[in-house]
Amino acid sequence: MEENNEVQIQEILNQENPQFDDFRTSELADFLNEHPEHGEKIILHLAPHRAVKTLKFLDVKLQKKLIHTLPSHVVATLIQNMHFDDRTALLSELTSETVKRLVLFLPHDDRVETLALLGYPEDSVGRLMNPDYIEVNSNDTIQYALDKIRKYGRSIENINFIYILDENEKLIDDINLKELLIAPPEKKLNELMDRKYLALHVNDDQETAAAIFKKNNRAVLPVIDDNGILLGIVTIDDILRVESEEATEDIHKIGGTEALDEPYMSTPFLELIKKRAGWLVILFLGEMLTASAMAFFEDEIAKAVVLVLFIPLIISSGGNSGSQASTLIIRAMALGEITFSDWWRVMKREILSGLALGAILGCIGFLRIIIWNSISPIYGEHYILIGITVWLTLLFIVLWGSLCGSMLPLLLKKLNFDPAASSAPFVATLVDVTGLVIYFGVASLILSGTLL
Amino acid sequence: MEENNEVQIQEILNQENPQFDDFRTSELADFLNEHPEHGEKIILHLAPHRAVKTLKFLDVKLQKKLIHTLPSHVVATLIQNMHFDDRTALLSELTSETVKRLVLFLPHDDRVETLALLGYPEDSVGRLMNPDYIEVNSNDTIQYALDKIRKYGRSIENINFIYILDENEKLIDDINLKELLIAPPEKKLNELMDRKYLALHVNDDQETAAAIFKKNNRAVLPVIDDNGILLGIVTIDDILRVESEEATEDIHKIGGTEALDEPYMSTPFLELIKKRAGWLVILFLGEMLTASAMAFFEDEIAKAVVLVLFIPLIISSGGNSGSQASTLIIRAMALGEITFSDWWRVMKREILSGLALGAILGCIGFLRIIIWNSISPIYGEHYILIGITVWLTLLFIVLWGSLCGSMLPLLLKKLNFDPAASSAPFVATLVDVTGLVIYFGVASLILSGTLL
Repeated sequence: MEENNEVQIQEILNQENPQFDDFRTSELADFLNEHPEHGEKIILHLAPHRAVKTLKFLDVKLQKKLIHTLPSHVVATLIQNMHFDDRTALLSELTSETVKRLVLFLPHDDRVETLALLGYPEDSVGRLMNPDYIEVNSNDTIQYALDKIRKYGRSIENINFIYILDENEKLIDDINLKELLIAPPEKKLNELMDRKYLALHVNDDQETAAAIFKKNNRAVLPVIDDNGILLGIVTIDDILRVESEEATEDIHKIGGTEALDEPYMSTPFLELIKKRAGWLVILFLGEMLTASAMAFFEDEIAKAVVLVLFIPLIISSGGNSGSQASTLIIRAMALGEITFSDWWRVMKREILSGLALGAILGCIGFLRIIIWNSISPIYGEHYILIGITVWLTLLFIVLWGSLCGSMLPLLLKKLNFDPAASSAPFVATLVDVTGLVIYFGVASLILSGTLL
Repeated sequence: MEENNEVQIQEILNQENPQFDDFRTSELADFLNEHPEHGEKIILHLAPHRAVKTLKFLDVKLQKKLIHTLPSHVVATLIQNMHFDDRTALLSELTSETVKRLVLFLPHDDRVETLALLGYPEDSVGRLMNPDYIEVNSNDTIQYALDKIRKYGRSIENINFIYILDENEKLIDDINLKELLIAPPEKKLNELMDRKYLALHVNDDQETAAAIFKKNNRAVLPVIDDNGILLGIVTIDDILRVESEEATEDIHKIGGTEALDEPYMSTPFLELIKKRAGWLVILFLGEMLTASAMAFFEDEIAKAVVLVLFIPLIISSGGNSGSQASTLIIRAMALGEITFSDWWRVMKREILSGLALGAILGCIGFLRIIIWNSISPIYGEHYILIGITVWLTLLFIVLWGSLCGSMLPLLLKKLNFDPAASSAPFVATLVDVTGLVIYFGVASLILSGTLL
């Protein structure tokens, strides 16, 4: 935030009756995120609609804290002034005990609707819904619709579209406000109707909804249930938030951490450790198998210590190619570009990629051994055979890494797990263990009778 | 896409004068993405505004192909019917030769504006801008503004806000269409004005713009230049696209691949190899240093082969903790939660995290050696010393991995490189090489006089 905003707000805070009218709510929120101790004072001195907006821009942690420390009647006013989707988002962060207490402050109808929204599964479109929209009948005139917008528009988050319902509340069309404004007001709405509309289903996954928004370039979409009844609308700003959160979750998982629920800096230390230690320990236990695999080849190692020199090089190449493949596939799946049914096309690509990449790395490895050895003969008389061993191992292991990395996310999805859990470190660990077997297998084949 | 859409479109294609009015443009685009060979026929039989929408939803590759194969006068009509931002997005994908040819078909004013948009840097707000908006003066009445919307609204992508300019085209306020609709039409606009508005700067980075959209919950924002002159507007659907592309880019880089420009499946094979081989070779060359490091410790290895068994376990633990830290920090930086100035706070967190996580893994490693050895004494008489070596090494290496992983992205950003380039595999490779030095260093300290 700007330096002088901070100074000004500090000054105003020292006044007896502080007025924050000169600041945007996002500026106030910026200030509070850095100086949470002034939260109560600022919120109490804002008009309810400005207080709600400020609250919305705060860190979730601070939001929760304020909800618990502000006087109950103030919280009640704030909650009542929130749009449904924001209210649902906030309440779903609180304990059910607090929610029960807060919901009591709402008028009866609001109470019922809010609890209904909280009843939808956490990643469903239902949770993003806002039940405030303008509905009309096909026999109404354009003038009637415009009057309705004038009357109710102020309390409604988005009026880009109005919705035409039949006598059973079933959605039959949507009309763009733009169309409405440029048509003669005395016309009937059914003259504007084409009975084509795009709608989300209330149980749709939020990621599906995001894909539909992106594909159709919409700013707002209606939500219907199994019977085509209009339940609410979803606006694109919530979709933007969903997209960003989903990407963060995937990125954290790809990096081998359980996804953090809050920003890195505001995640409590113990939680940060818990989220990281879980996967780290699992990977460590998996990687222990490498020690077992190595113990199994101890005789070979004792006979040909030179083989040991290339172990980190070889297993990390397998891991790197695996993490490339898994990351590409995880993202392509998140964007809906690839589904399980594409597995064979993906596999063909990855077999070819793995062979090409493995051949490239193999050549470099082979050359390195030949060239190094010509400088100082550290690899002994069988250096060419060692070079061939490294060459072949790299070919196989990069192929194997690409295959594991690409197939694992598809398989996880098929088994209804999150594909992003097949993180780069996870694939790398898998490939490390099997990579050692490949390495020593190839070595026994090539070097048997000479070094081994 | 739905099965029966596909059949229906195929049938219509066989008719002499095909009509696609029953399909949404997104449905037609879905069909074309799977059957690109029908592109020309379908586009030629659509009304220009529907053709433009269909084109917009196509894969970039197919868009480019159609632009090159459709008759020039058709392309000209299409380009003329596009919104400015979509036009800029399409043209910026084409070669400058093609752009020059196409721009000639535009009316003079459009030509100037389009070329101006193409002049802004690739990731700037300028490229997302749409110069179509409703502008009014503060002395105009609300009725005048509404009439203007009725007159020009149809050709304008977003009319949520109208903009109030002074006599020098300088932006002085924005007014929400909602406010306009619910106010008495005879009032003057300056009665609605609060002279507060939020605007993007034309040279802002697109990621900055996305952050501003998210923070302020807007669907559209005006764009101004250094002098406050209004140049255009940016709509949130473009921001959603930008966000998704940026996340894809970061995810690819975190996985150790150069970011793909097109979806995984439509990236040509050779390009896929090129983008992956680059980093894979760099990592391989870096990892070669492990072979050198190991050669340096060859005497120790020959004396105590048992140390070799734990090499993959130890270096991968360092790599995993490093990739966790780097991924968390890269994402937090992309979301604007962390900047370079936070480096000391981040470092403190990571020192503590690294010590805690290292201690946990160290304990597990120590226990494993003690327990295994009680079953079969494979680690020899000095197994407790070996256990201590592994314990201490893990402590140091996880600490080191967390520090490298967290500081590298911050450092890269400071040096004006992309922080996402400090990918998980990159950090892992760095930690692998240094990890070996740590391991053998600790081993010589603990085991000197016994095994070494």
